[in-house]
Amino acid sequence: MTVRMDHAGRRERLRAVAAERGLDAVLVTDLLNVRYLTGFTGSNGAFLLRVEGHDLFGTDGRYTTQAGTQVPDVELAVDRATVAALARAAAGAGRLGYESHVVTVDGLRGLESVTEGVELVSVRRAVEELRAVKDDDEVDALRRACAVADRALAELAAEGALRPGRTELAVGRELDARMLALGAEAVSFETIVATGANSAIPHHRPDATELRGGDFLKLDFGATVDGYHSDMTRTLVLGHAADWQTEVYALVQESQAAGRAALAVGADVTAVDGASRGVIAAAGHGAHFTHGLGHGVGLEIHEAPGISALGAGTLAAGMAVTVEPGVYLPGHGGVRIEDTLIVTDGEPELLTLTSKELLVL
Amino acid sequence: MTVRMDHAGRRERLRAVAAERGLDAVLVTDLLNVRYLTGFTGSNGAFLLRVEGHDLFGTDGRYTTQAGTQVPDVELAVDRATVAALARAAAGAGRLGYESHVVTVDGLRGLESVTEGVELVSVRRAVEELRAVKDDDEVDALRRACAVADRALAELAAEGALRPGRTELAVGRELDARMLALGAEAVSFETIVATGANSAIPHHRPDATELRGGDFLKLDFGATVDGYHSDMTRTLVLGHAADWQTEVYALVQESQAAGRAALAVGADVTAVDGASRGVIAAAGHGAHFTHGLGHGVGLEIHEAPGISALGAGTLAAGMAVTVEPGVYLPGHGGVRIEDTLIVTDGEPELLTLTSKELLVL
Repeated sequence: MTVRMDHAGRRERLRAVAAERGLDAVLVTDLLNVRYLTGFTGSNGAFLLRVEGHDLFGTDGRYTTQAGTQVPDVELAVDRATVAALARAAAGAGRLGYESHVVTVDGLRGLESVTEGVELVSVRRAVEELRAVKDDDEVDALRRACAVADRALAELAAEGALRPGRTELAVGRELDARMLALGAEAVSFETIVATGANSAIPHHRPDATELRGGDFLKLDFGATVDGYHSDMTRTLVLGHAADWQTEVYALVQESQAAGRAALAVGADVTAVDGASRGVIAAAGHGAHFTHGLGHGVGLEIHEAPGISALGAGTLAAGMAVTVEPGVYLPGHGGVRIEDTLIVTDGEPELLTLTSKELLVL
Repeated sequence: MTVRMDHAGRRERLRAVAAERGLDAVLVTDLLNVRYLTGFTGSNGAFLLRVEGHDLFGTDGRYTTQAGTQVPDVELAVDRATVAALARAAAGAGRLGYESHVVTVDGLRGLESVTEGVELVSVRRAVEELRAVKDDDEVDALRRACAVADRALAELAAEGALRPGRTELAVGRELDARMLALGAEAVSFETIVATGANSAIPHHRPDATELRGGDFLKLDFGATVDGYHSDMTRTLVLGHAADWQTEVYALVQESQAAGRAALAVGADVTAVDGASRGVIAAAGHGAHFTHGLGHGVGLEIHEAPGISALGAGTLAAGMAVTVEPGVYLPGHGGVRIEDTLIVTDGEPELLTLTSKELLVL
């Protein structure tokens, strides 16, 4: 199960990784990785982890006060040229790790110019790998984010906001505004509202298309709370469901249940994808399920682990993932059902609690 | 004045820059630069500009339909490994420009691995430099974004939402929700609501602090419309303004007017900053104005040109900029007044139309 882990605990995990790799220090410049390790939420910050000796958190003058509040337990360096300042502070390190998937070509030149004699070594996605397994604080934030999304949809449905004649855009804006009113600090991503034939487009942008009786209405949306993103898709029918709609829906529902059931500690991500995809393929709709099954979710809406036929790796307790199979029939309509869940030693914990029965409004 | 310029026109400007620099092609991977040059709004896209021959727009299978609609006039390449696919298509180029401030160290290795025999040359911020001068479509989007923010604030003030007893967080969420309801696709940045002593913190995050009579209330917020960001700050007083408050307010107001008056074609950005800053310095508050005067605004909330004592360059007609001096008295309160404007051959065009008289609610 997940464990309580404050920011200092996360830094110790990274320190162990750095020591294992023979590094003297690690310069973390990805802003979300910095947030993960320190708690800092401003728009400019960097973190220098030293295997031996004290760490250093850097930001600029706009955030001196905020840094004092959010990162009280790490020495602070205030400098407009934040990354360069931390790099200079690391000048004594023999081997300095940096994030080669984040640092730009220009950025590396800048680092080299202030760290003469230091060996710069890529740490790749070391922090992202730690982030894949959530601690209790993170699961709590995800739970609250999912609850906001659940409630926003329930309120809109109860108020009759999802009715024929309204446009996708209007519904999307109302859903976004409701999530903010319910305590989301932001929406997790651009909300997808897709009705009728548009529901067959996996990532349709809401437009002026009006909701009509008898059409599918696909809603893919999420709330961000304390930096953590929820992600949920529900597909409804307005008015009356035709036979082909109930059939496609039941198929995706079965596939999604199979995907959830396959979420287990040690399961290979390709096997999880296959468990869900196999249900759809067996029904002859394999070609209509055109994307991966799911993805990790946390400080980013898409993060490790990827769950698809092309993925690699196995699941661990505490990972937060989505399970979101879909069947898309071009020109007709499509169904996707998506939950956010936590992998545990037992049953996965379901965070998005909205019913997955076919809702006919 | 600004001119009408469709996406093809923007690409021709970049083609001229590329030819001038002796490049055969340019690989644009910054997503906003890709949007600027093609109109594509999805989350994965890249653009290959060829000095001679046809261009190529790349994305992945999620966006095939969207690319057809948004980028009908550029040949489409659909590939999961989008950037690599475009780089391979550029393999015949002698000198290929790339964005060294965007491409990561890992990304450059990837490019090198598929472009053997091609000379990779940094184009730095060539597209960002083009973006600094807005065309008519862009100014129109900025105008609409600013109008949403103006109206959201007017409605909240009229409804009495800015009253003692409410928290900064509640006011911020209501402002955000109102902007979305009025047609913003997103907020431009994390809305700043700062009351009382918090108003002395330039970038205060809204918290549970309650609005109180006699306090300053500083609101810095913006709406995004068609990808373009508005940016406005207004500072109000709740109840009754004390003498020190009207004095500080009048000073910032005078400084802001001086900054706006200095916006002229050919003006050096340091001189514009100086015109506004000089007013505050002459009143003995130079040390209480702790940030630059303003910044360009467009597809990003902060873009070229920077207007500060450390900036470089001159203003050109069609640039969209903010003018936002502030005086912050730690522990007491602060005032910032900010507009978004367009530089023209004559008077700058003011886009944020909310009154700058000290509003006492």
